[in-house]
Amino acid sequence: MATKTPTVKLASGFEMPIVGFGIWKVPNETCADQVYNAIKLGYRHIDGAWDYTNSAEAGKGVRRAIEEGIVKREDLFITSKLWNNYHAREHAFEMAKLENEAWGLGYLDLFLIHFPIALEFIPFDKIRFPCFWSDKEQTKVTPLAKVPISETWKALEDMVQTKENPNGFIRSIGVSNFQPQLIYDLLSYAKIPPSVLQIEHHPYLTQPGLIALAQENNIAVTGYSTFGPQSFIELGNDTAKKVKPLFETEVVQSIAAKHGKSPGQVLLRWCTQRNIIVIPKSNSVDRLKQNLDCCSFDLSDDEIKQISSLDIGLRFNDPATLGRPIRIFG
Amino acid sequence: MATKTPTVKLASGFEMPIVGFGIWKVPNETCADQVYNAIKLGYRHIDGAWDYTNSAEAGKGVRRAIEEGIVKREDLFITSKLWNNYHAREHAFEMAKLENEAWGLGYLDLFLIHFPIALEFIPFDKIRFPCFWSDKEQTKVTPLAKVPISETWKALEDMVQTKENPNGFIRSIGVSNFQPQLIYDLLSYAKIPPSVLQIEHHPYLTQPGLIALAQENNIAVTGYSTFGPQSFIELGNDTAKKVKPLFETEVVQSIAAKHGKSPGQVLLRWCTQRNIIVIPKSNSVDRLKQNLDCCSFDLSDDEIKQISSLDIGLRFNDPATLGRPIRIFG
Repeated sequence: MATKTPTVKLASGFEMPIVGFGIWKVPNETCADQVYNAIKLGYRHIDGAWDYTNSAEAGKGVRRAIEEGIVKREDLFITSKLWNNYHAREHAFEMAKLENEAWGLGYLDLFLIHFPIALEFIPFDKIRFPCFWSDKEQTKVTPLAKVPISETWKALEDMVQTKENPNGFIRSIGVSNFQPQLIYDLLSYAKIPPSVLQIEHHPYLTQPGLIALAQENNIAVTGYSTFGPQSFIELGNDTAKKVKPLFETEVVQSIAAKHGKSPGQVLLRWCTQRNIIVIPKSNSVDRLKQNLDCCSFDLSDDEIKQISSLDIGLRFNDPATLGRPIRIFG
Repeated sequence: MATKTPTVKLASGFEMPIVGFGIWKVPNETCADQVYNAIKLGYRHIDGAWDYTNSAEAGKGVRRAIEEGIVKREDLFITSKLWNNYHAREHAFEMAKLENEAWGLGYLDLFLIHFPIALEFIPFDKIRFPCFWSDKEQTKVTPLAKVPISETWKALEDMVQTKENPNGFIRSIGVSNFQPQLIYDLLSYAKIPPSVLQIEHHPYLTQPGLIALAQENNIAVTGYSTFGPQSFIELGNDTAKKVKPLFETEVVQSIAAKHGKSPGQVLLRWCTQRNIIVIPKSNSVDRLKQNLDCCSFDLSDDEIKQISSLDIGLRFNDPATLGRPIRIFG
């Protein structure tokens, strides 16, 4: 088992392991085993979401690891996220409770607003996937719902377990895919400040101002899609197919060779060394080990700069590029 | 006098001339005369702001033109903007009333939230300039104020003159420098929808998604700094000094030559042809005439694309680049 992963202290007071196992696109059939095995390898942080539709299976894997005495509940950090169709207060509560039950671990460590956009409610007994950016045939965009982010945030605040709110089942709350201005606005009315901002973050999309804004305001940053285009090729993203894989760039390759590490480890260290939490996924045990072990070496400031200079402002996870006129990133 | 400038119909029902005279940086000493002369030349739209500290002088110029019978009040379109330190409801009202009195024209046609950031209140009897992003010595950033945009928007709504609100002194309301996500959020709670979004817009910063979002939601777009770096050189902006002036780019020059127009007219037409309102400033009568006359020819779709392809995502009007850790654009 790897040495203990470093943690980031959140505004809520809780500690969040800086490397997690992200279960976006982990198939339902293998999810329980993959999560179980990740914990066996030393992972203590699992990043899920209602949208990934594998929370029940992930929870099963976690519970097996706990039952076998590999780990205790309190040593784990479990994240889930509220989907766009459930931003209204009552729906947010209903969805969060269903999600908490699906994991079956008593509480969730972190619950995020997945995207800063409210879409029309869809009843919970309807088919869950493809998550209703549009209708099933992808011909019609789901209408927006008139739910301010302030209402959704208040709902999340009221899920947090405190002395005054012993029925709360969430420990820390945060946001995902938010732009600076919406974060400033959130900070103006939040009674419980956001603990985490999760964003797309890789050398082709570095967003230094957004990260500085978050970290200056004591909001820990989680970067997703650290390997850039890689995650999006399997989704048929044309730009992802055309752009040079980050692992093959000269900058990343030469730094990896110099340190005797894999390109993936270099990209993860480029994040964690700047206190950015990472949630890589892998189906290979070797890669899982490597990813978890990404804090065992240090890059020089110059190496970090070299990697950051690959920035071309290239965003992959944008609903607008999937033909939906929802323009949350402009 | 030029032929009548085309107008854009706003969500409020009012018509806004697609070319205006922007008075940012117009000196107090000459402002009344410059505004008076602009009206004489045919301008019917003046874009001001509390922050420009020349509203009283501008109003004087407008009133002279009205008194001399050159124009009627109802033929003019006057914009002003709420500054960052006055976002709280009572301060917004106080400032808007002072601003309306400074112009001295009975009402304002359009009032915008200037920036999506609330800074600590500074009493009105204190020195007005440099507008309090920081203290006078620019060593300390003005603290943020905990005022949600929803509070400020509600204040603006309550300034709008309607049958139910005959004391209102504003005809249309809108926002400036807003990002997509904050616009979506605003649309979720606005009782009076925003009529206008004013943003930095030039070929080096085209923001097509933001413009599409606004126009799809019936929010008219006003672009400022259409000539790009030009406006910022006199402010000592290093990037503006280094980058190639837009007037000197081959694309703009060749298109200008082909149409027998000035580069400035080409840049303005690149906006107005896409229904984007422009507010150029000039101290020269010839240039003022040219600017107003920028709708007298048409660019081809391909020429518009060529100009748009100069985009390098280069923003000049960003408080963060002035050493202030206010990261509204990331």
